[in-house]
Amino acid sequence: MHAPAPLPALADRLAQALRDHAPLTRDTEPHLRAVLEQAVGHPGRLLRAQLVHTGARRHGMDEAAAARLAVAIEYFHLASLVLDDLPCMDNATERRGRLCPHLVHGEATVILAALALINRGYALIGFAMAGFAPEWRLPAQACLDACLGAAGLVGGQAADLRFGEARATPRLVGRIALRKTGALFSVAVVLPGFLAAPSLAEFRALKALCVYWGLAYQIADDLSDAAGAQDRARPNLAAVIGVGAARARLARLLRLADGTLRRLTRAHPRWDYLAEFQARLLPAGETRHPGLAA
Amino acid sequence: MHAPAPLPALADRLAQALRDHAPLTRDTEPHLRAVLEQAVGHPGRLLRAQLVHTGARRHGMDEAAAARLAVAIEYFHLASLVLDDLPCMDNATERRGRLCPHLVHGEATVILAALALINRGYALIGFAMAGFAPEWRLPAQACLDACLGAAGLVGGQAADLRFGEARATPRLVGRIALRKTGALFSVAVVLPGFLAAPSLAEFRALKALCVYWGLAYQIADDLSDAAGAQDRARPNLAAVIGVGAARARLARLLRLADGTLRRLTRAHPRWDYLAEFQARLLPAGETRHPGLAA
Repeated sequence: MHAPAPLPALADRLAQALRDHAPLTRDTEPHLRAVLEQAVGHPGRLLRAQLVHTGARRHGMDEAAAARLAVAIEYFHLASLVLDDLPCMDNATERRGRLCPHLVHGEATVILAALALINRGYALIGFAMAGFAPEWRLPAQACLDACLGAAGLVGGQAADLRFGEARATPRLVGRIALRKTGALFSVAVVLPGFLAAPSLAEFRALKALCVYWGLAYQIADDLSDAAGAQDRARPNLAAVIGVGAARARLARLLRLADGTLRRLTRAHPRWDYLAEFQARLLPAGETRHPGLAA
Repeated sequence: MHAPAPLPALADRLAQALRDHAPLTRDTEPHLRAVLEQAVGHPGRLLRAQLVHTGARRHGMDEAAAARLAVAIEYFHLASLVLDDLPCMDNATERRGRLCPHLVHGEATVILAALALINRGYALIGFAMAGFAPEWRLPAQACLDACLGAAGLVGGQAADLRFGEARATPRLVGRIALRKTGALFSVAVVLPGFLAAPSLAEFRALKALCVYWGLAYQIADDLSDAAGAQDRARPNLAAVIGVGAARARLARLLRLADGTLRRLTRAHPRWDYLAEFQARLLPAGETRHPGLAA
């Protein structure tokens, strides 16, 4: 087993890889270039990318391929962020402290930038997968299809858009969270996880973990989003069941995730890197995440 | 060598495959479902899909994989059509005799439908490629990246959007046509073509053929588009160099394509299926294509 790179160094390396693999050429149209450079130049914490990279390395993928796989998943995430901000979606004006790119470069250019990121993401995955047997490639391909497409991320966003038209139940809020937030965690955990040829029990534990992570992450976000809680047209669990009940549900999900992870790593230590990510993704108690503060 | 299926029967089979592989599940959000069903249910002539399927079968791919590959390329094409019609792009109101779906189901749903088609397209390609060696998969992956991304289709649309801001030269019009129209022909010819492990000379002839097809197809379209010829903000060769000069250029491109194809198939008969597609894509003389009528 190799010694994993310390994570801040890994985040820096992946931030560089994000820029290196960007779908830019010498003659890229300047507005398209500006949107792409802003997206890949300010990528946030890169938690998903680090999770993909660490898992892929742990399960035997070489450094260059692991970086490609990680960058690809981050490109899908970045594409979903710029599209979510469009006037026809969430109509946002700011992201990560900057004006949303559609306000500067137009909606059409943002749509094209998202397509360029997605297209390059699939190319990077194709290259990262190239040296592996169909026994890994086929389930990995099916995982991408299920998590990113109409059954996953895209379908979740479609349901989110029409949330105001349906009866706001905790179940519906959870289903949307699972498809929008859980789907990218599933890709980040399960895609590199297939490299380890997990047993059915391991696979089920990984899937359950992603469900707990996705729901918990979304509840923490809902709790921190005071504006969202006022807007009945947007799915927000705190608005539907109240802040106290949402906090209790979040605490329960964290316990479930802890238990699942403890049992999984006790039997199969090769998944132990997931514990560190869980701690960073969902700090327990009254700590870092604003949604978890009293 | 197998006997190729008669093409009308093939178009029917592919139209069915287009519906069968659609990214729809039992619980797909109804507006997303409606947009997807309209897109896959009214696909036009399916020339690109037939070209992919015929090439893939001729070069040794089995029926199911060839159909997947063909459907994938058609999904990319359908995604580009619904996005091109959006208000922020071409602001169209009608496509194939029907109201554009964004007028009925909203822009956000159309964007999500396009993403669902693209995502499923890549999944289908992954499955179609699964049984093949990296020697085919890697160049095929690179071809998709180059033709569909920022260097191809996406980049062409970005340049198209800003056409009105640049000096309208025949060179610029041609560059946009190559990236927007030529790129999908390149994918349709070259992607299955890699299965034949073409020599460098064959590869160059195929690429040249796609350049001639892309430019010629676009000029024929420009000639038939009287409205576009009036609108200086849209690339239209007839508007830039005049109808007579555009007709002459089209005739020259058809001669170049004929010559390239004749030399290629004389030396390598395995590419002979391309001649039939050229005849259907770009009918010579004063026949079917309205842009070619006097």
